[in-house]
Amino acid sequence: MLAKMMNSPLLVSSILRHAAAYHGDTEIVSCSVEGPIHRYNYADLNRRSCKLANALCRLGLRFGDRVGTLAWNGHRHLELYYGVSGSGLVCHTINPRLFREQIGYIIDHAGDSVIFSDPVFLPILETLVDRLAGMKAIVIMTDVAHMPASEKLPNLVCYETLLSAESDDFDWPVVDENTACGLCYTSGTTGDPKGVLYSHRSAVLHAMAVVVPDVYGLSAADSVLPVVPMFHVNAWGLPFAAPMVGAKLVMPGPNLDGASLHALFESEGVTLTAGVPTVWLGLLDWMDSQRKCFSTLKRVAIGGSAVPPVMIQRFQDLGATVRHAWGMTETSPVGLVATLLPKHASLAHEQKLALASKQGRPIFGVELRIDGDDGRPVACDGKAFGALRVRGPWVADGYYNVAESPAHSAGWFETGDVATMDEDGFVRIVDRSKDVVKSGGEWISSIELENIAQAHPAIREAAVVAVPDARWGERPVLVVVLKPGQGFDHQDMLDLYAGKVARWSVPDAVISVDELPHTATGKLRKVEIRRIVLGEYARRARVT
Amino acid sequence: MLAKMMNSPLLVSSILRHAAAYHGDTEIVSCSVEGPIHRYNYADLNRRSCKLANALCRLGLRFGDRVGTLAWNGHRHLELYYGVSGSGLVCHTINPRLFREQIGYIIDHAGDSVIFSDPVFLPILETLVDRLAGMKAIVIMTDVAHMPASEKLPNLVCYETLLSAESDDFDWPVVDENTACGLCYTSGTTGDPKGVLYSHRSAVLHAMAVVVPDVYGLSAADSVLPVVPMFHVNAWGLPFAAPMVGAKLVMPGPNLDGASLHALFESEGVTLTAGVPTVWLGLLDWMDSQRKCFSTLKRVAIGGSAVPPVMIQRFQDLGATVRHAWGMTETSPVGLVATLLPKHASLAHEQKLALASKQGRPIFGVELRIDGDDGRPVACDGKAFGALRVRGPWVADGYYNVAESPAHSAGWFETGDVATMDEDGFVRIVDRSKDVVKSGGEWISSIELENIAQAHPAIREAAVVAVPDARWGERPVLVVVLKPGQGFDHQDMLDLYAGKVARWSVPDAVISVDELPHTATGKLRKVEIRRIVLGEYARRARVT
Repeated sequence: MLAKMMNSPLLVSSILRHAAAYHGDTEIVSCSVEGPIHRYNYADLNRRSCKLANALCRLGLRFGDRVGTLAWNGHRHLELYYGVSGSGLVCHTINPRLFREQIGYIIDHAGDSVIFSDPVFLPILETLVDRLAGMKAIVIMTDVAHMPASEKLPNLVCYETLLSAESDDFDWPVVDENTACGLCYTSGTTGDPKGVLYSHRSAVLHAMAVVVPDVYGLSAADSVLPVVPMFHVNAWGLPFAAPMVGAKLVMPGPNLDGASLHALFESEGVTLTAGVPTVWLGLLDWMDSQRKCFSTLKRVAIGGSAVPPVMIQRFQDLGATVRHAWGMTETSPVGLVATLLPKHASLAHEQKLALASKQGRPIFGVELRIDGDDGRPVACDGKAFGALRVRGPWVADGYYNVAESPAHSAGWFETGDVATMDEDGFVRIVDRSKDVVKSGGEWISSIELENIAQAHPAIREAAVVAVPDARWGERPVLVVVLKPGQGFDHQDMLDLYAGKVARWSVPDAVISVDELPHTATGKLRKVEIRRIVLGEYARRARVT
Repeated sequence: MLAKMMNSPLLVSSILRHAAAYHGDTEIVSCSVEGPIHRYNYADLNRRSCKLANALCRLGLRFGDRVGTLAWNGHRHLELYYGVSGSGLVCHTINPRLFREQIGYIIDHAGDSVIFSDPVFLPILETLVDRLAGMKAIVIMTDVAHMPASEKLPNLVCYETLLSAESDDFDWPVVDENTACGLCYTSGTTGDPKGVLYSHRSAVLHAMAVVVPDVYGLSAADSVLPVVPMFHVNAWGLPFAAPMVGAKLVMPGPNLDGASLHALFESEGVTLTAGVPTVWLGLLDWMDSQRKCFSTLKRVAIGGSAVPPVMIQRFQDLGATVRHAWGMTETSPVGLVATLLPKHASLAHEQKLALASKQGRPIFGVELRIDGDDGRPVACDGKAFGALRVRGPWVADGYYNVAESPAHSAGWFETGDVATMDEDGFVRIVDRSKDVVKSGGEWISSIELENIAQAHPAIREAAVVAVPDARWGERPVLVVVLKPGQGFDHQDMLDLYAGKVARWSVPDAVISVDELPHTATGKLRKVEIRRIVLGEYARRARVT
């Protein structure tokens, strides 16, 4: 029997409308591309998003068309989030850090009709002139005074000129909540980038799920600074979550060094921030060297890669709590958050740190299973490894314009991660499925072995990959880049791992190389490293 | 263009599954009907709800059937919420405080197939024997030892016996999220009770919307005691919200006096509670008389009727913040919450109290308009009156088995309330539309006039109603019940209102009566009071 409740769709425009109506005078502060700090509020954001929506109509865009963005976190990018999605178009955020061929591929594959770009990314666009030939417009996100000239792209449109002609009145259309609102490509370590196509429903539900006290804990009393870029899975949902609760939004622009971030934290009373560990390392080291502290910061959401316990400790010493989170482009992104439970209050300090540095527990709305090779759930003992599968209303069920996805079958998304779960539901990501070493029926975490090697004083960078083995199936091999003038031989390796891991987990060999291959986003290219190892094995075999 | 996200429905069973899996050892504490405190946890709730679902199947219930409950807040009632709704049936909570004819009408109109009742409500059922003839079962929510005997209803089933035979394994069906999960009748001051039919979607979205920091602010660290009964709009959503975030749940049973509540607050470390002003008056007075304080209580959600500023002050003095909220059975119920904004921190204490005692600002998801007689929005100046209309995914768009509802038209629900809104979106409920006095183009709030009269030392209870007037359209008349031995004449009335309200708002006459007519839930029956006034006017006319 169907209920008698209103059929009100969950729409991105409803977030903007709520913020403009009931938090209209709450500030949005941006480090602008022109230089000075830009300030306005949610009522202004609404007016300018309406102007943008009118401009997009005038450019001839139709329902469902994709609009590409190449931009740092700032107020104009926020206007694109709402102006584009709100009017039934798809906001396609492009990661400018990708290799140029990848950017070209992504623009092509998405079929973008218009590109909006920060002036700083014009050189990228100039290398893609052929790909951009069919665009309805290439818009540079600045004012007339700061418009760059381009010989290769002579018809650039100025964002402020585009908006200036338009009315600030626009009726946000009421669309099906399953309509696409955003598109974000995964960089991936293998194969072509794949596009995740978010819906209005997934964006709104994800925002509702992350503002709760045990995730971001966002309220109108907060000042939020997303360090995570808006081209990384919608800046982890913060551009939707902050207006939803009327929190102040602080957009850092391109300057993410310690000094710039700390100055902004202090001047804008930031209470919550979010970003990857690398950025925080820079900030914490700079603060240490300058003997700085935080006046207002309360919570730091960290994801993207695992947080070392020492980082949690350093933030704690500065009065801020770390919320370690896990997610993927395919999960909108938040799936797990390592918020401690009341019963953990009595744990020893070290145990608390250990828990908080796990990837965390499923947030409401995300269902999860960790399955062994037999497809059945592994024990929840914090030790048994398995393949992490998730599902829920903000998990992708496929990729844009990709006919079939092997990661999406039987209603679950194969994250490609290998994980454990303890009795309380705390998940620890152990490895990527394709990187885990399956040796004699046991799974060996390449990441665990790498972390141990990384801590050795002679080693600058370490990778562990699996090589085929007739007896064990696979065996781990350690590949290292040494620091200048350092040595590290087989015996050093045995000494290093002795007592730290099970004997059968110790790598069979160590190979020293000059450098390790990485992706555009800094991840190790393990397929290539495996090739290097096999080459070296062949060479050694010939020599012996 | 449709997005590529999973089509995962929002279901009541997903709340239970999440709580059982990730907050399985979190306690649910109930003051049982048998006497002692009953303790178990979310994992137990899941197991017992599964048993109940199996029992309902065995009783022959089919998808969409209605299951009536007559019960106080306790663990078995919670099992009904999940066991009934989770298995695709409709949990129909019946208010035992209604007149018996109304209860009979409601059971009939809902078409309940089974009734679950606390033993204490057996006398009500015994007066309705004819209506209950077609029931598949009448189940008494207790164990064998406490089963009452009934000559009029000889086939009573014992709840614990019913469950004991069943498996604690049940596959919660995946149904359309718009499927009905609950049914609750409005008492109404006129006409027959009307049933609001909630959906799984509305229940889940409402819970997600109220756990955020600026509404209930619920986390796994909380201990929640819903004083508001589970037969009043799903206890304001708390039976869904608490398990969603893994908060401890404390169920008070029938004893809502100050001493019982305070003891439970202290022994169970309650941090959040929710209920109507009358209950809190009892608690605060008892605490004053006993010189008690709160050890753990942080937040008190108050709704149902307006909170006097002095009550907010009294809780504040005891270290607890009041969250004044507004809602209706038709709005699931939360629509407005009076949480102050950061900018209000600098207001004078009295001004803060005044704001916090308004009904509040719309929470995300609820859209609202306040329209004047011309159907256009009134000014947001905190003064202009208008009709309050709301819409959103947890607002009813009609009533169960009622062909047409004049309150539901053009996509908005007419709340029947008259309200003002200030610049910041704080809404004040001024009156019921049918009670407001429309005099010479101005709207006069009957509630404002009543509150002033109520504060007069000679007056025990006061009502203000409109009478037709040839010149002004309508004029207010004050009707009072005097305290023993007291007098209150026309001049006393003029003195009372002088300087407190505009001169044209002062009632035309005062009429003293022995008692005022009320509904079953204690609301004034203004239609009848108007009849009394017109009768008295006619008598005076004859006498003069």
